[in-house]
Amino acid sequence: MITIIAGTNRRNSTTLKIAQYYQELLQQKGITAEILDLALLPTDFAFSALYENNGKHPTFNMFREQITKFDKLLFIVPEYNGSFPGVLKTFIDGLEYPNALKGKKTALVGVSAGATGGVWALSHLTDILHYLNAEVLSIKVRLATIRSHFTEGKINTPLYNDLIQQQLDKLITF
Amino acid sequence: MITIIAGTNRRNSTTLKIAQYYQELLQQKGITAEILDLALLPTDFAFSALYENNGKHPTFNMFREQITKFDKLLFIVPEYNGSFPGVLKTFIDGLEYPNALKGKKTALVGVSAGATGGVWALSHLTDILHYLNAEVLSIKVRLATIRSHFTEGKINTPLYNDLIQQQLDKLITF
Amino acid sequence: MITIIAGTNRRNSTTLKIAQYYQELLQQKGITAEILDLALLPTDFAFSALYENNGKHPTFNMFREQITKFDKLLFIVPEYNGSFPGVLKTFIDGLEYPNALKGKKTALVGVSAGATGGVWALSHLTDILHYLNAEVLSIKVRLATIRSHFTEGKINTPLYNDLIQQQLDKLITF
Amino acid sequence: MITIIAGTNRRNSTTLKIAQYYQELLQQKGITAEILDLALLPTDFAFSALYENNGKHPTFNMFREQITKFDKLLFIVPEYNGSFPGVLKTFIDGLEYPNALKGKKTALVGVSAGATGGVWALSHLTDILHYLNAEVLSIKVRLATIRSHFTEGKINTPLYNDLIQQQLDKLITF
Repeated sequence: MITIIAGTNRRNSTTLKIAQYYQELLQQKGITAEILDLALLPTDFAFSALYENNGKHPTFNMFREQITKFDKLLFIVPEYNGSFPGVLKTFIDGLEYPNALKGKKTALVGVSAGATGGVWALSHLTDILHYLNAEVLSIKVRLATIRSHFTEGKINTPLYNDLIQQQLDKLITF
Repeated sequence: MITIIAGTNRRNSTTLKIAQYYQELLQQKGITAEILDLALLPTDFAFSALYENNGKHPTFNMFREQITKFDKLLFIVPEYNGSFPGVLKTFIDGLEYPNALKGKKTALVGVSAGATGGVWALSHLTDILHYLNAEVLSIKVRLATIRSHFTEGKINTPLYNDLIQQQLDKLITF
Repeated sequence: MITIIAGTNRRNSTTLKIAQYYQELLQQKGITAEILDLALLPTDFAFSALYENNGKHPTFNMFREQITKFDKLLFIVPEYNGSFPGVLKTFIDGLEYPNALKGKKTALVGVSAGATGGVWALSHLTDILHYLNAEVLSIKVRLATIRSHFTEGKINTPLYNDLIQQQLDKLITF
Repeated sequence: MITIIAGTNRRNSTTLKIAQYYQELLQQKGITAEILDLALLPTDFAFSALYENNGKHPTFNMFREQITKFDKLLFIVPEYNGSFPGVLKTFIDGLEYPNALKGKKTALVGVSAGATGGVWALSHLTDILHYLNAEVLSIKVRLATIRSHFTEGKINTPLYNDLIQQQLDKLITF
């Protein structure tokens, strides 16, 4: 049982579609995966669910429960401005501190329009997850120049699909 | 003329107070500094001012203008969860892409309750600022164990004050 | 069975002594650990064991075998110039490419005279180990202001010793 | 006057050839540039020029003087194992501590066979240079899939040449 985090709040994002593609692939392996879509967060959660409101926002707490629910997390992370979306970090800043992610087993997927596949995003996110004592699989899939490689809801590049399969198999037995 | 960015939306934050302390120090040097306080952002800006709404939110646009206004920026950045606050990156994600920070001259200050003074935060933020072609001063002040060093609105540790003065003098002539 | 890498070639280094301390702690847990001391590398290995000489240097190959021998590696890494020692990376550059570290289970310990405990060193090394498909435990021990905390061959600070025990227990069952 | 550091000790490296290409481009702009080629370092410098030998090795000291000579440095840095070559960091570890690079104005060029152009290498090197109080230009050229883009001693891709020209113009007026 795995929670897939679609790591942006952009509506109808490619990131969400890639999350759905991963969900399908996991289903084919007999694994249930649920998607946590940051686009569905309360729009003012950065204020209404953090700091003095931490843990007190009923809707945001449902997202927190989705994190608690399974011990495996798959992050699909687009590259914005040389890192991952701020909203993903704000989401993490709203979790129960300091133990919400402790002991979680995580895998990271970077997505970019350009050539890097989100190198910085995945490096920064690894620092944060390690800081919070979540384990991070070494195999990180970087889906670069995504517009050529993802069409009609599927990754169409065999090399990328091989990497994805390797990553999922590692995550399942992590 | 310098814009000081108080890099969290936590209300009454130490970060804001440190921003005010820097503002005073600059004033003593005859430099006008204005504070951009992320706590005053529209609470739903992560949704209402990004993506399809980019550039269309009148209140958020006033914050964008504060960034455009001066060519020097001083970031006061607390450490949250092994990096800087997500809201700071979300703010950057809402600026005019890709040129809002291009050519800006920036200086970074890390603030932490613990011993690191925000090492990761400043490293990640440097990656992002360089990606966006902003210049980043090499001298970064890391204010660690802040509760012992900042009392009654002032840094009381000579070593820290020396570093701050060096950094400000560099920023002024950057 | 664990190989402990003393991550500097400085003679009689504190790093080596800390490696020996870890070795003792492991022995008390009934675990055999062998130390790979970079100070014993052939002095010209950066030239005589890399590139066209990769894999052909009998003495250096004994160090490579020490890496192959066990599947768990513990890196003791001092902070030099805002990262780990260059010689440690050069050593990695001399290993069999690209699979020497693939699948290894690693734990990282940072050592610094100053306050950070090697934050940058451990972050950079994590990027490299992940790139080479080695797994890296999230719990990283950062031994800061080492001269106060390590005396007569032992860490004398209970907080540090607790972290070390937690890390070793995780590494043993990793 | 600029020192170009060819950031590997591999003989006849593409990195060195790219350094020579940059030297030519600078010459066309009327700027003298000298190449510091790490392949010419004393082969045992990691032992004979560091620590207790720091500053005492006549041949290595000639390289140190090349660093002192000009206040602008251009680093050409190949990607090895998810970062820059260890020998480059070892070289930095052998410089006069802590002021050898203080105040230097530096520009970074990454070179990779693969798609990233050395993203990690340049990020790690920026951390180190900033730690040592060297200024680092935000514009970093990343020469990816170098074998297609560098032939007969020249970069043949207009996009890359445009970036190189922008970077050099910035470095000259830095």
